[in-house]
Amino acid sequence: MKNIYIIGVGLIGGSIAKDIKHLNPEITIFGIDSSTENLDEALTLQIIDQKATFSDLKNADAVIVAIPVDAAVNVLPEVLNLVHDDALVMEAGSTKVAICKAVENHPKRRNFLATHPIAGTEFSGPKAALEGLFQGKTNIICEVEKTAFNLQERALTIFKIMGMRIRYMNPEAHDKHIAYVSHLSHISAFMLGKTVIEKEKNERDIFDMAGSGFASTVRLAKSSPDMWTPIFKQNKTNVIETLDEYIQNLTTFKTYLETDRFEEIHKEMSDTNYIKDILNGIQ
Amino acid sequence: MKNIYIIGVGLIGGSIAKDIKHLNPEITIFGIDSSTENLDEALTLQIIDQKATFSDLKNADAVIVAIPVDAAVNVLPEVLNLVHDDALVMEAGSTKVAICKAVENHPKRRNFLATHPIAGTEFSGPKAALEGLFQGKTNIICEVEKTAFNLQERALTIFKIMGMRIRYMNPEAHDKHIAYVSHLSHISAFMLGKTVIEKEKNERDIFDMAGSGFASTVRLAKSSPDMWTPIFKQNKTNVIETLDEYIQNLTTFKTYLETDRFEEIHKEMSDTNYIKDILNGIQ
Repeated sequence: MKNIYIIGVGLIGGSIAKDIKHLNPEITIFGIDSSTENLDEALTLQIIDQKATFSDLKNADAVIVAIPVDAAVNVLPEVLNLVHDDALVMEAGSTKVAICKAVENHPKRRNFLATHPIAGTEFSGPKAALEGLFQGKTNIICEVEKTAFNLQERALTIFKIMGMRIRYMNPEAHDKHIAYVSHLSHISAFMLGKTVIEKEKNERDIFDMAGSGFASTVRLAKSSPDMWTPIFKQNKTNVIETLDEYIQNLTTFKTYLETDRFEEIHKEMSDTNYIKDILNGIQ
Repeated sequence: MKNIYIIGVGLIGGSIAKDIKHLNPEITIFGIDSSTENLDEALTLQIIDQKATFSDLKNADAVIVAIPVDAAVNVLPEVLNLVHDDALVMEAGSTKVAICKAVENHPKRRNFLATHPIAGTEFSGPKAALEGLFQGKTNIICEVEKTAFNLQERALTIFKIMGMRIRYMNPEAHDKHIAYVSHLSHISAFMLGKTVIEKEKNERDIFDMAGSGFASTVRLAKSSPDMWTPIFKQNKTNVIETLDEYIQNLTTFKTYLETDRFEEIHKEMSDTNYIKDILNGIQ
């Protein structure tokens, strides 16, 4: 494995590039990005070794696509058309059903591996790329049986370098579960931010009173709308289901407040405190 | 100022004690707590110098009450009954209307200062106490004009030691605003945790997929139900208002999803990205 091409040199693509480069200096990292500015920045920051274009993809041993998921469904078939027969093509987006569907009948389907490295921050662009971002994090691989065995091995070598633990899942289960533990968190944070900002328009200095708890709960509302709009679009059905349940739980809590059922409120919180044990396994 | 009594030696009371002790070693810190276990632990951890009881309060130069707000409304009048005429009594809870009302006609009202040091973590008890927790944080003081001038000064000396910045506000404005930037965040986190835990009951290993974004958004769901139930009870009207607005915003977002209005969804998120600038001022 000598030449790795990263399409989309932002937070995820850039962080992958940094890990590979740091741990395998003999590999050359080529960057492709629809934004010339991002590409230049990635080169300046030494995230990539060289700028490249789609016509260079024939030289790739591995291609990692890390772009918004609406662009990914269009770009992936094109990438598969361009790579040689022994190249590995991976994609790192937060939805998997639409991605897998976009390549299901492609003649080079066996060159493709669907992955979701679950790591990130609320920032975006090459400057946001972090070495070690994926260390100890989970990588969900979908439809592994559809990928050529030697290319699976090549992918696992890369993930091993990055220190990721692997879980296998079908795309439907991935999209359903990730809606709960990731997509809903983003909407919850965005709408919390919106609610408080709307209030602040009329009530000055409200943010003077905000502490670290608010900052933590609303952190994901800094995330990129360009990245998240297509995720919600592709995972619409599951996201609506999570929102239904979340709104229902909030409404029940409000009803308890309105009807002075504070024992129930205490119980709701006690039951949910169990999240402590769960989070200990995450952070 | 020689003898400071802390009633409630948990996260907040314990952290205040640590700061005062560290920066003014000549002050003796006395601890009072309804839990013998907590009190012993606070002594062992050297958060307090001595254990004490209400009958000792006559020796206090300052008393800081840091207990759940339902207990505070009962304890405060009793504390004021017991202290000498030149003692300062403060309370540090997350609601202010009910607290101020509980002492409004007390003969020693001028000995009392209503405060809300806005700092904390999701943990509780003496072990959770942190030195420096309040450094650079905001302390809201309510009805300052009702406190004797020399006791205001004594309080400000303590807050200065702790590195806090002071904001003055009436109790009604405090409770209204804090509902948005603190109380709603807690409900949002608790109900997010609940929604995901409920799903997990049927879908194993869902938390395998949770990343740092989920952990951050749900962090406050670790908070103590004993502390938060009375806060929601005392600030019921304001909290219901914030929940109404939050649920409305979530429902609108869901409607946009259901009707494929993704431009609106993008706009909602872009508008809320402005939270970045706000949060830069907090953390």
